[in-house]
Amino acid sequence: MTDKINLAEKFALLEKAYVPGIVGYMNDYKLQIVKIQGPFVWHKHDETDDFFLVLRGRLTIHLRDRDINLEPGEIFVVPRGVEHCPDAVEETEVLLIEPSGTVNTGDAGGEKTAEPLIL
Amino acid sequence: MTDKINLAEKFALLEKAYVPGIVGYMNDYKLQIVKIQGPFVWHKHDETDDFFLVLRGRLTIHLRDRDINLEPGEIFVVPRGVEHCPDAVEETEVLLIEPSGTVNTGDAGGEKTAEPLIL
Repeated sequence: MTDKINLAEKFALLEKAYVPGIVGYMNDYKLQIVKIQGPFVWHKHDETDDFFLVLRGRLTIHLRDRDINLEPGEIFVVPRGVEHCPDAVEETEVLLIEPSGTVNTGDAGGEKTAEPLIL
Repeated sequence: MTDKINLAEKFALLEKAYVPGIVGYMNDYKLQIVKIQGPFVWHKHDETDDFFLVLRGRLTIHLRDRDINLEPGEIFVVPRGVEHCPDAVEETEVLLIEPSGTVNTGDAGGEKTAEPLIL
């Protein structure tokens, strides 16, 4: 049986921006936290939507036609197949939920591709 | 294309405890908010895990062998098939994520069964 997950305690274990950590699972989805600072890479996930909930800081999700600006307590679900680029000026803490096999850089690959830590 | 979801604004639209509201979707999962006050009913979902994230207040999830006490920023995933009974002394705001067809009272049914509002 799993225990409860305290997100602040888990974020304290993350050292680097854009290296996500898995804090739990729901069915075949991973519950993942990440610190975002600076621009990520443009990418998309053809096979899944992508759930973002901001917990601390401010997150901009650049889309090709507009920016989504999120503050704590705000969610945005990037639809499958839609190109996006997360970005933050200050270090920003985000909860991500997506199918367990989802790669952070989607179709883009490159040096920011990271295996999640198991927290 | 969906827009961002401000959870505080959505909670302001909920009038009654235990009548959930759907604020969005991720694939075939509903993103649902609910105000919890007082004990719910013991129930289980044989076909899915059940994700709880507390946003305001304090939530107790009674299990048959222990209580899970959650504060804001804490998550608990009730595994499929596990009997549970959410409970809160003060009005407590919770984000729930579960497959779209999931009924709030699971196998128990009864008067607390509620169709979610569409927020």
